[in-house]
Amino acid sequence: MQRGAVYVNGKIAPADQAVVPVYDHGFVYGEGVYETLRTYNRVPFLYDGHMRRLRQSAERLLLDVPFDDGSLLKWMDQTVAAAGELHEAYIRVLLTRGVGDLNYDPKSTPTPTTVIIVKPLDPVPSRVFEQGIRISLVDMLRNHPKSVNPVIKSNNLLNNALAMQAAYRAGAEEALMCNYRGELTECSQANFFMVRGGSAITPVSAAGLLEGVTRAFIFELGRELGIDVREEVLLPKDLESADEMFITSTTRELSPVTNLDGRPVGSGKVGPVTKKLLEIYQRRAQDLTAVSASR
Amino acid sequence: MQRGAVYVNGKIAPADQAVVPVYDHGFVYGEGVYETLRTYNRVPFLYDGHMRRLRQSAERLLLDVPFDDGSLLKWMDQTVAAAGELHEAYIRVLLTRGVGDLNYDPKSTPTPTTVIIVKPLDPVPSRVFEQGIRISLVDMLRNHPKSVNPVIKSNNLLNNALAMQAAYRAGAEEALMCNYRGELTECSQANFFMVRGGSAITPVSAAGLLEGVTRAFIFELGRELGIDVREEVLLPKDLESADEMFITSTTRELSPVTNLDGRPVGSGKVGPVTKKLLEIYQRRAQDLTAVSASR
Repeated sequence: MQRGAVYVNGKIAPADQAVVPVYDHGFVYGEGVYETLRTYNRVPFLYDGHMRRLRQSAERLLLDVPFDDGSLLKWMDQTVAAAGELHEAYIRVLLTRGVGDLNYDPKSTPTPTTVIIVKPLDPVPSRVFEQGIRISLVDMLRNHPKSVNPVIKSNNLLNNALAMQAAYRAGAEEALMCNYRGELTECSQANFFMVRGGSAITPVSAAGLLEGVTRAFIFELGRELGIDVREEVLLPKDLESADEMFITSTTRELSPVTNLDGRPVGSGKVGPVTKKLLEIYQRRAQDLTAVSASR
Repeated sequence: MQRGAVYVNGKIAPADQAVVPVYDHGFVYGEGVYETLRTYNRVPFLYDGHMRRLRQSAERLLLDVPFDDGSLLKWMDQTVAAAGELHEAYIRVLLTRGVGDLNYDPKSTPTPTTVIIVKPLDPVPSRVFEQGIRISLVDMLRNHPKSVNPVIKSNNLLNNALAMQAAYRAGAEEALMCNYRGELTECSQANFFMVRGGSAITPVSAAGLLEGVTRAFIFELGRELGIDVREEVLLPKDLESADEMFITSTTRELSPVTNLDGRPVGSGKVGPVTKKLLEIYQRRAQDLTAVSASR
């Protein structure tokens, strides 16, 4: 049974009673976009960045966004309030093309559907930050930018699901994917970084990936700490020269990677650059939301 | 407002009242497979072929099919009966991973969701068979087989939707797509054939496409008529040498294509090979279902 509450086009219901029409194109075609947010101090973190990206995703599908950021934030707060006791919230905002005849003509679906899923945030287990996780470089290729561009954060998540199934089979907690040219891109639910010679390096956007809001924040934090954070074209063989690795996402923050397909990364322990970035990330997340919360 | 009826896990509702849970992974991730069928003489046509393919699609997602073909046919008949007055039925069967926590572990979703959408079939307009349609060769590439294999008939239909949006912009009724190697594959909702020197040629399966049930039936009909129907690696430049073109799908049968991006195909009229195949297709569809209907 699901916990929390769900907003659907103006109505809030307990999570296990929330429904959408079968004819919603989000259901029949996966035609929709989304963002995942989490709160610190019960304030959605990096809200502006997430909303900017939601609009960019929607634009690529010729999907009108039927709300302004202020209205959505208000509905989000109402849904959080309805979700009952929770320390911090996991929030998923979905915007689908809405209900309409079964064809791909945007004119068939004049009214988009807005959904806000709120549930208690499952904290990242402390073993993740202390010992790091194992990931797997999988065979599944990240979607081709001219097929379904990975910059669109869409509900078409089968590519990600299939990659994760391969990772589970390999005993790993995340799947790292190449593009059709054989360059590294990103993980199924996170961006990827490797540390080499003190620099934190992440695959170039042009490889075909979703530029994470957390990924962008790591660039800011690097500047603050004097750590070189940069994009590069990365190939699987570059992984061999990595001293450290980590992945970034809204819900997993900056999770150290200490094992790649059974082989230790660097020393096999969480490295110093990863530790510094994680520490300041968590500090800034608290600081930035404490300011908003006290407003 | 939607017409017809919808079956969801044992319950049948009018189309405009049918719902699925927000937490269904078919909604949040597009994790599901489907088949589109139509009736002739109120009998689902080529049922066995569609059910075989549904199972193949599901297997690729490690998704258990929780029914046998006989049970599904019974539910389908019940949904058709509930759909009210209809001459012939459009039937869409969807099988999703079902409700569960928001992650890609198949263990999180033990119970798949079965949906059957039934609505009155919109007959193909007579102008389509008499004059043919216009299609467009679009820039959007068909999904890479190692990303989301097109052999999986899944609810992740954004690739198809984006291709159709491009076709609409080009004033066309269908979108023809190449794969990442630049070879022709299929249309967004149909398979593609071109006629050259009396032979009907369709892109090879290895190009990365969904092998249509109707496409397979065209091979049978070709043998019956003594028309050579075969697969080939086809490139965009091969389109210039086509005498005729047609597309095939369950709902559009065999629809002649007389215009490609503003240029007439061959004579610009429906050609003789297309006509012969269409005629026998429609005859066989009636014959084969009349036999079943009278059983």
